[in-house]
Amino acid sequence: MKKGCPYGTHRVIEPKGALPQPAKKIDNTMEIYDNEILIDVQTLNIDSASFTQIKEEADGDVEKIKEIMKGIVAERGKHQNPVTGSGGMLIGTVAKIGPALEGKTDLKVGDKLATLVSLSLTPLVIDEITEVRKNIDQVDIKGQAILFETGIYAVLPNDIPENLALSALDVAGAPAQTAKLVRPGDTVLVIGGAGKSGMLCCYEAKRRAGVTGKVICLGHSEKSLAIAKRGNIADYYIAADATKPVEMMEKISEITNGQMADVTINNVNVPNTEMSSILATKTDGTIYFFSMATSFTKAALGAEGVGSDVNMIMGNGYTKGHAEVTLQILRDSKEIRDIYEELYA
Amino acid sequence: MKKGCPYGTHRVIEPKGALPQPAKKIDNTMEIYDNEILIDVQTLNIDSASFTQIKEEADGDVEKIKEIMKGIVAERGKHQNPVTGSGGMLIGTVAKIGPALEGKTDLKVGDKLATLVSLSLTPLVIDEITEVRKNIDQVDIKGQAILFETGIYAVLPNDIPENLALSALDVAGAPAQTAKLVRPGDTVLVIGGAGKSGMLCCYEAKRRAGVTGKVICLGHSEKSLAIAKRGNIADYYIAADATKPVEMMEKISEITNGQMADVTINNVNVPNTEMSSILATKTDGTIYFFSMATSFTKAALGAEGVGSDVNMIMGNGYTKGHAEVTLQILRDSKEIRDIYEELYA
Repeated sequence: MKKGCPYGTHRVIEPKGALPQPAKKIDNTMEIYDNEILIDVQTLNIDSASFTQIKEEADGDVEKIKEIMKGIVAERGKHQNPVTGSGGMLIGTVAKIGPALEGKTDLKVGDKLATLVSLSLTPLVIDEITEVRKNIDQVDIKGQAILFETGIYAVLPNDIPENLALSALDVAGAPAQTAKLVRPGDTVLVIGGAGKSGMLCCYEAKRRAGVTGKVICLGHSEKSLAIAKRGNIADYYIAADATKPVEMMEKISEITNGQMADVTINNVNVPNTEMSSILATKTDGTIYFFSMATSFTKAALGAEGVGSDVNMIMGNGYTKGHAEVTLQILRDSKEIRDIYEELYA
Repeated sequence: MKKGCPYGTHRVIEPKGALPQPAKKIDNTMEIYDNEILIDVQTLNIDSASFTQIKEEADGDVEKIKEIMKGIVAERGKHQNPVTGSGGMLIGTVAKIGPALEGKTDLKVGDKLATLVSLSLTPLVIDEITEVRKNIDQVDIKGQAILFETGIYAVLPNDIPENLALSALDVAGAPAQTAKLVRPGDTVLVIGGAGKSGMLCCYEAKRRAGVTGKVICLGHSEKSLAIAKRGNIADYYIAADATKPVEMMEKISEITNGQMADVTINNVNVPNTEMSSILATKTDGTIYFFSMATSFTKAALGAEGVGSDVNMIMGNGYTKGHAEVTLQILRDSKEIRDIYEELYA
């Protein structure tokens, strides 16, 4: 059996010397190396920005969506959207464990898990797409995938249904990062606060900011905000178009008496919301960009352009304990769990 | 006289409601609004990533470079490279000050200044390009530009020659951010440390990390490192290709006895260095991405892909006092000033 690199570089076909994520093409042969885990895949949870792009390209047609997804995997050996660069995650069952991992992993053959590394670096084979759940970015398939030695995962909990856990784990980084950033008394603005990751961020922000803090849930429609309100996740719920910075700034200024937000969490998967985030935040505040639609140059030049000293953090999908933090929200809040079951599971 | 918005939104032609930086096209009529400053431009200092792209597109031909640059301004009303999205800055003389700024600004007509907001949002007219200094990304022009009310600038100091000050001010954000991030005893890795902003970052990192800290200057060639060494800006000078993450990781591991860097500053204006930055940094360390070639998705998914909890900050070209911090380096270090005069002025 061949020996593999912990980061999976042994699978990279092009360009040589790269890691699997930035690689254009990786080897998706389903014969494992000594430190790999083979997974029988059941469901793919496509990154929201990626799935939105695929749906648009397919004009919403299910057969065309299948064709595009299969095409991506055939081309690259992984499900990395060539337009957005992003992937998603998967749910499946452990089929084989490489001998070099014995004593190193607590996984056993037959365990059901969710991989928490991106599909954009995961060797994948799709034999058949059996169901496309367009409204929740999930796709059931027959196929297999490989988890590298450094790949993070969560064994699925017994007390939360699978699809529900998967939906929450897909965005696990955002609420866990929110928990680390928000301090008591902070004014926190969550852009895309009524969305899948946004609601969890609002909940976590409210828990950390406490009674002296203020959480503003900003959504794009009154309809989504009405649902979010049932979760009791914020102090203010406002509808605004986050691609209109001046309009946004005025609304946040009104709510905060001109003080603006200490912390802004941007979860909205549409382009051109960098400037709204900057103008809505104190000049010495912090913006956490979780959206994969974020443009580095627009954010960097945008802040400079208006002379804002704001601290801008690039969303890291991983932080220690992120799966635990996120699943705990579904246990602590029956309201959020109900909304999640209704919308995403 | 027409009243303008502090952020310059009154100049945006397309799309309406956007700010000047993300806008596709802005109005570059040189008739000022009541809160604008008109500048007679002398020199443009093009952003390094942008100028590299333009030079490549022009195959190094000076006339072709002029043509591309004029084309960008004719198309967009500002010098924003359509490929890199970035701009640069300018040096010029105050020609007119809008009446609404009276008592608000300390500028006078005739003052020589450098604008510290990006050219990617600055209304600009180029009448003629009189000189192209290919090796230092500078271009002399006859033309005019507009500074908005929130636009930051520095009046040029008397004790530092103009071109030298401009070269340093162009990258003023990076050393000033370094000063804020680095703590005594830190191990600091500066990728692109022998470059224009990298040398200033190394110097500032060494000043802050102190005798108990360690500064690693990473360059792409022995030649550039030999020059940087004359500045006495680091404890280690190493040559490596930052687009090869595994190779980089091994080198930094060797120098730090497997501890890796507390703080990594990425200044290198080539794509695909996100992963090297991540693998070279402690899992609870900080990476400051100053390079405009940084890809948001590559960084975000890259860290997640290898299970790193690293804090990734998007370079903000502005922070309070950045011009002062940066110009002070040229006063404190004769060695750096000499190198800068040789290479960039």
